[in-house]
Amino acid sequence: MTCAPDATILAALERRLGPKGFTRDAAAMEPWLSDWRGRVHGAAAALLSPANTDEVQAIVQLAAAARVAIVPQGGNTSMVAGATPSTSGNALLLSLRRMNAIRALSSEDNVAVAEAGVILSDLHEAAAGIGRRFPLSLGAKGSARISGLISTNAGGTQVLRFGTMRALVVGIEAVLPSGERFDGLSALRKDNRGYDLRQLLIGAEGTLGVVTAASLRLVPAIGARAVAWVGLSDPHAALALLRRLEAGTGDAIESFEAMPANVLAMVLRHIPGTRAPLAGDHAWNVLIEATAPAGAPDPVEAITALLAEAAGDGLIEDAIVATSEAQAEALWKLRESIAEAERGDGPAAKHDIAVPVSVVPDFLVEGSAAVEQKFAGSRVVAFGHLGDGNIHFNVMAPAGADGRAWVEREGPAVNAFVHDFVAARGGSLSAEHGIGQLRLTEFARTAGPVRLGVLRAIKDALDPLGIMNPGKLVPPLS
Amino acid sequence: MTCAPDATILAALERRLGPKGFTRDAAAMEPWLSDWRGRVHGAAAALLSPANTDEVQAIVQLAAAARVAIVPQGGNTSMVAGATPSTSGNALLLSLRRMNAIRALSSEDNVAVAEAGVILSDLHEAAAGIGRRFPLSLGAKGSARISGLISTNAGGTQVLRFGTMRALVVGIEAVLPSGERFDGLSALRKDNRGYDLRQLLIGAEGTLGVVTAASLRLVPAIGARAVAWVGLSDPHAALALLRRLEAGTGDAIESFEAMPANVLAMVLRHIPGTRAPLAGDHAWNVLIEATAPAGAPDPVEAITALLAEAAGDGLIEDAIVATSEAQAEALWKLRESIAEAERGDGPAAKHDIAVPVSVVPDFLVEGSAAVEQKFAGSRVVAFGHLGDGNIHFNVMAPAGADGRAWVEREGPAVNAFVHDFVAARGGSLSAEHGIGQLRLTEFARTAGPVRLGVLRAIKDALDPLGIMNPGKLVPPLS
Repeated sequence: MTCAPDATILAALERRLGPKGFTRDAAAMEPWLSDWRGRVHGAAAALLSPANTDEVQAIVQLAAAARVAIVPQGGNTSMVAGATPSTSGNALLLSLRRMNAIRALSSEDNVAVAEAGVILSDLHEAAAGIGRRFPLSLGAKGSARISGLISTNAGGTQVLRFGTMRALVVGIEAVLPSGERFDGLSALRKDNRGYDLRQLLIGAEGTLGVVTAASLRLVPAIGARAVAWVGLSDPHAALALLRRLEAGTGDAIESFEAMPANVLAMVLRHIPGTRAPLAGDHAWNVLIEATAPAGAPDPVEAITALLAEAAGDGLIEDAIVATSEAQAEALWKLRESIAEAERGDGPAAKHDIAVPVSVVPDFLVEGSAAVEQKFAGSRVVAFGHLGDGNIHFNVMAPAGADGRAWVEREGPAVNAFVHDFVAARGGSLSAEHGIGQLRLTEFARTAGPVRLGVLRAIKDALDPLGIMNPGKLVPPLS
Repeated sequence: MTCAPDATILAALERRLGPKGFTRDAAAMEPWLSDWRGRVHGAAAALLSPANTDEVQAIVQLAAAARVAIVPQGGNTSMVAGATPSTSGNALLLSLRRMNAIRALSSEDNVAVAEAGVILSDLHEAAAGIGRRFPLSLGAKGSARISGLISTNAGGTQVLRFGTMRALVVGIEAVLPSGERFDGLSALRKDNRGYDLRQLLIGAEGTLGVVTAASLRLVPAIGARAVAWVGLSDPHAALALLRRLEAGTGDAIESFEAMPANVLAMVLRHIPGTRAPLAGDHAWNVLIEATAPAGAPDPVEAITALLAEAAGDGLIEDAIVATSEAQAEALWKLRESIAEAERGDGPAAKHDIAVPVSVVPDFLVEGSAAVEQKFAGSRVVAFGHLGDGNIHFNVMAPAGADGRAWVEREGPAVNAFVHDFVAARGGSLSAEHGIGQLRLTEFARTAGPVRLGVLRAIKDALDPLGIMNPGKLVPPLS
């Protein structure tokens, strides 16, 4: 059990961090005490905003000595309330937003060294400034910060080609629960000196320490891109198309986003200024993006030829390739507006699941049918990153029902049904959002004793006092 | 401390494993009790060769109950004696060579599910059979087995583009030191359910459990390749050339192997049938391979144009692009014969080091000079994977000296000097070979208390009895 901080430690923290780094003012703390969807509300004894790694070490050392809980927070964009403290008010909220320097940028190493609080879109800009690109992006890029992206092993729309954060972090600096500093920032592409602590900290949701800086992989800047929209009859054809395009373009395919007709119709119904990209009706749609670095051949020609061939073979029904940036943006808007359109359609029990890629087509068909049969009148809205097996699987209330009340009442049963369906197919109940607080119960229910045993053993070994982000990720012993 | 196995446990193992899976015959055990370079010799109480994961579990459960050490072994090709038991004769040698089935191959998932004992070249063939490729290769591919490649996070000649095993393993099945089975074989591209045990087992050298099977990433088969040889004045120009080629080919560059004039001369001197690829003298040479999948444009044209441009700009001195497979093979033979040529030149203190890529050029120049100054008369032979920062840095005895005696006498001091030089530049003393037994002392000396503390904490948490591959990787408390 952790303890409430007493006046002595609070005074010591205030002295060490100064007025910019320490506050107990309710108004100043308030924006950071709820998750960004406003579903979970917590309290904190103080908001700490260190300016550098030395200050983070001082905080953790004081907290460890007094057995006080620390909740690290980056951009506070967690989908699972992973950065929201409990309601006890005993925790110290440790915001990394002042540590926002990009310490180094190298086009020779293809590496950026970014502090924990660097905002993702700022990193994108800095990389562009040296002719490079950081190839991970997501909706919250204007708010999400490096420490949170690492601690949640963030995914996004380019995982198909470049992987998640796990594949893009080449070095980490962190403060461990002991208050010691782990200096693993050196950007080594090969390093076989024992267990990989960097990989252990990625996706640990702040439960094993505070990530204070990272060395991140950069790739050549985009020279040209091809954005296409394809209509086809079913998700099996979509997967076959993906494999053809990958083989035919040398792995240039970055995005391959699938959605059924009902999702496209929902977007067209709710989002002003959108229109159907293709003339006919198609049971399924795919948005495709391929890119090439400066100097390399424009991918438009290859994509156009491959799609023509696929149409000739009857694999797809219709397709267009954008001929201008404006057209490309209009196609992307259809994909990026799904979440907004869903809000227009009402509340849903949402799931962020993954299955092996080959299972996705059957899962989309059979999973939707099974849920709609089990929960009479419910409507499944399923779409996502087909190429990496990640499906956003949302179950909406029956037409005419009070959506909020239905989700409140049926949500837990829907979640359990969907997660069991996923587990039976070797899948994961958290593809990219993590566990945090909101998936903790379901994770504990489904993880099994071996996975939970290892998780707890590592947690106990590295954070024996349990001060790092308690109540997140690691299910309590029941 | 572990214990010697008594007659009861040996009888139980013999009963469980049968005659194919259990032997104490000295002649049958002998080939597996020395490392493949013949430098380290051990002993074992029995050689166990389980046929499946159930049998591995039975072995570990019996060993754990009796506190008997287990030494897992794949192809026994470790460069650091990581699979050789101690001389006590108390350990059980657990060979995975009978578990050599490829359980599944999927061109839809781009995944192969291989058991621990599958030989790397067999996996290559199986992948080719479905139009795919497993993009990791190395000299020992005809002997090295999947479990060892995973447990050492193997590298090889394609790391530049595809990464080490860490980037290619998408699922792991393992038996933990408790005897429990970890079933993480499902090939999920995204899975954020807590600490990544797969990543923890990769590179753990069998100290945290026995890897029994893995799901491995496949990529499209090669349709065409371009192999080129370039002469240039210094390694800085080589690095600049690499970045140009990467940007100009859309990351098609798989291999970028650098060697100075003295290494090429050594190869030409010792290996029959080799000849210099270029007419003039060049201080440095680079072997380049770019590939394209079937259907994509042949990379020869792009590489030829980029090299012509680089020559026009004065970045390189001369270059040829192979126009036949025979020419390509002849160029590769120059690179692959370096180790054999070195044996012709005599013994050396060898180092497998990594530094950040941008540091490689200065390191090659300054590191060689520093060593040759410190150890009068010694000659540095340095070459390697420039693009991923991995240098094979070998120090040979002065001309005329007794090479073996010199290495015996000066080796430890040379090792310490080189490793300190590497550490001062943020590098690693083990880029791809691991720690095993042979690097344990130097690892303990240089790792620092934080890294060692975490390593030991994890080891103690997951293997509290210390039965898994003792004496490897984890330095004992002094």
